[in-house]
Amino acid sequence: MASNDTKSSRRAASIESFKVMDLLKRARELEAAGCDVVHLEVGEPDFATAEPVAEAAIQAVRAGLTQYTPASGIPELRERIAAFYDQRYGVQISPEQVLVTPGASGALLLAFASLVDAGQRIMTSDPGYPCNRQFLHFLNASAQLVPTGPAEKFQLTNALIAEHWQPETRGVLLASPSNPTGTLVPVDEMQAIAQRVRQLGGQLIVDELYHGLTYGVDAMTALQVDPECFVVNSFSKYFGMTGWRLGWLVAPEGAIKVMERMAQNLFISPPTVSQYAALAAFTPQSLEIFEARRAAFEGRRDFLVQGLRDLGFAIPAMPEGAFYVYADASHLTDDSFAFCWSLLEENHIAVTPGADFGQFNASRYVRFSYTTRLDQIEKALQRLAQRIRG
Amino acid sequence: MASNDTKSSRRAASIESFKVMDLLKRARELEAAGCDVVHLEVGEPDFATAEPVAEAAIQAVRAGLTQYTPASGIPELRERIAAFYDQRYGVQISPEQVLVTPGASGALLLAFASLVDAGQRIMTSDPGYPCNRQFLHFLNASAQLVPTGPAEKFQLTNALIAEHWQPETRGVLLASPSNPTGTLVPVDEMQAIAQRVRQLGGQLIVDELYHGLTYGVDAMTALQVDPECFVVNSFSKYFGMTGWRLGWLVAPEGAIKVMERMAQNLFISPPTVSQYAALAAFTPQSLEIFEARRAAFEGRRDFLVQGLRDLGFAIPAMPEGAFYVYADASHLTDDSFAFCWSLLEENHIAVTPGADFGQFNASRYVRFSYTTRLDQIEKALQRLAQRIRG
Ligand SMILES: Cc1ncc(COP(=O)(O)O)c(C=O)c1O
Ligand SMILES: Cc1ncc(COP(=O)(O)O)c(C=O)c1O
Repeated sequence: MASNDTKSSRRAASIESFKVMDLLKRARELEAAGCDVVHLEVGEPDFATAEPVAEAAIQAVRAGLTQYTPASGIPELRERIAAFYDQRYGVQISPEQVLVTPGASGALLLAFASLVDAGQRIMTSDPGYPCNRQFLHFLNASAQLVPTGPAEKFQLTNALIAEHWQPETRGVLLASPSNPTGTLVPVDEMQAIAQRVRQLGGQLIVDELYHGLTYGVDAMTALQVDPECFVVNSFSKYFGMTGWRLGWLVAPEGAIKVMERMAQNLFISPPTVSQYAALAAFTPQSLEIFEARRAAFEGRRDFLVQGLRDLGFAIPAMPEGAFYVYADASHLTDDSFAFCWSLLEENHIAVTPGADFGQFNASRYVRFSYTTRLDQIEKALQRLAQRIRG
Repeated sequence: MASNDTKSSRRAASIESFKVMDLLKRARELEAAGCDVVHLEVGEPDFATAEPVAEAAIQAVRAGLTQYTPASGIPELRERIAAFYDQRYGVQISPEQVLVTPGASGALLLAFASLVDAGQRIMTSDPGYPCNRQFLHFLNASAQLVPTGPAEKFQLTNALIAEHWQPETRGVLLASPSNPTGTLVPVDEMQAIAQRVRQLGGQLIVDELYHGLTYGVDAMTALQVDPECFVVNSFSKYFGMTGWRLGWLVAPEGAIKVMERMAQNLFISPPTVSQYAALAAFTPQSLEIFEARRAAFEGRRDFLVQGLRDLGFAIPAMPEGAFYVYADASHLTDDSFAFCWSLLEENHIAVTPGADFGQFNASRYVRFSYTTRLDQIEKALQRLAQRIRG
């Protein structure tokens, strides 16, 4: 198995980068040359870290709270997160069920690593968040991608899981709301899925990263229907703390112990100042700020979805959350990747090609993010109109 | 290969936790019961983050510099680190050779992942930093532990590497100064090792985390003798920024590209505020603070080494760096792990057993950290004297 002739491992050589990275690089070149590029490709809120959270970070730095913490996070934060489940969902969990992690990224890596050995698989939907495939590949395992479309709102269903389960399948990952589609798994379907996965002897993992950012509906946590599931969440999106690299995972205590041991070795601890800052994210004052931002996102969603539909884009599943619209561009192209390049070069609009989220019908779809101001979205729609209508 | 009957993967089930964690837990119980425990087990500086670094962090928060950054780190920091190699070692590297990571922990994980496929090995010394074994295990690979003792200052040598190389060996990891022994790899030996590893078709990785913290000698960077090697470093130790979770890796540009792609997927980016804070770590004002701390560590080392020797501990390799003394306690015990427990229970001194660093003669050794004030070290030595002399 030695491959000393080539320097990098097969593991590393076949990790994929995001297609959007090249687009982003080109966008920066265009901007450096004076072009006014509208950014609808970005996967993070355009709002700055909320004032009370920033202030808590500054206080922590001043107080010298900058040493390593326990690998599972500071006890106060684990308690605060546990209390949040009661407050928001009426679900009781103990702080020992909460592992604080370096972003949801850290939580997903630990969750997968705690479940899969080499050659095993985690089932998830195509399209889906691309890093999940890479996490599993990194672990000598793989993602079992199940094609999903408008009929099931781009989400796995009980029926699909039953149909696709294999001996190597160790569990199922759902994201609700999903990236790139913004769709939710309905409560009754989540219940059926939880039962099915349990019966198959697998583990259910639910990525609830975009919770809080839902429009016209309240997302339920999967813990309401399956107290044994793994729930992944983050301070990045609803709480607007991307660069602070802080997330968490809720799981049964035994599973947390196993993952904590891995976290000790892999990460030592999550960033300390970020943890103290996050304590301030749950106060009524902060939540008020986040709710106002939610409302702004909702307004942008409505405007963007309507504008795209007016231009002939099919949006077969109305996005109920997150800040993405997964739009069918097949009336304009049969190669959405080429279309994205052309949009950037000719119209100075940056969006993400479907190919970054999977393979199933990926060449039809484009992801628009509404992580920019309404006037920017309006400008993009005008440029699109000009391109299409001439 | 499905093991759905048991919930956690073999990968996870066999990750080890540190023995010192249980000791630490017991130390906290003793403290809660009113005991005055002296902590000589801690692996991080007892100094707060330096004022200019803390101030830079606060400015970054105030300026709203809290979004995701490029996976490789902000360009300014990559440039600053590259410039530091010229300034400190007279070695020219380009910013594109620098990958900023979530701690050296992140750098080590990426370095190993970029080199090993399942079943392959990285050679390293026993005793050594325990997480390295776990990183490799995590990747379905393994550490090839080569016993080292006082004769080679607990470091791998050219001869040992030649003797132990196997077809599965993909590279060699050295730490200079080392944790737990504080010893350095001599320049001529480093040169011979670099040549040997290159000739064997492997990759040399050098953990230079404790650079800056050397006493009476200046550490050279392995880049001086091997421009192709991977060098791992961190803001945690010399720069006193443990909880900020920031480190870096220097490697040839091609290798950096591969690791950057993995970092994009695994981490998204290193913590943002930490990166802006770290920009202030290289100013003359900050370096002056770090140098004063270095001097304090040196005084503690001299005092602790002398005190331990007076009590009959053999310290066969004088620690030249880091903040650890790896002391032979075989005149007092043939089970250093039991000895550590007894030291804690009876004398309220917390230290780390050799078993946390490997297996070779581990039951003879105990690691004392001098990451606490001189008066605490003195107190510990007095308690030890009382225990030994009655
Ligand atoms: C669905 C999903 N999960 C996880 C993540 C990781 O986020 P973070 O590591 O910042 O918490 C993202 C980021 O975009 C995401 O979209
Ligand atoms: C030898 C060695 N390498 C790497 C690390 C990881 O440090 P960090 O991730 O804080 O940079 C440590 C921490 O103690 C260490 O002792």
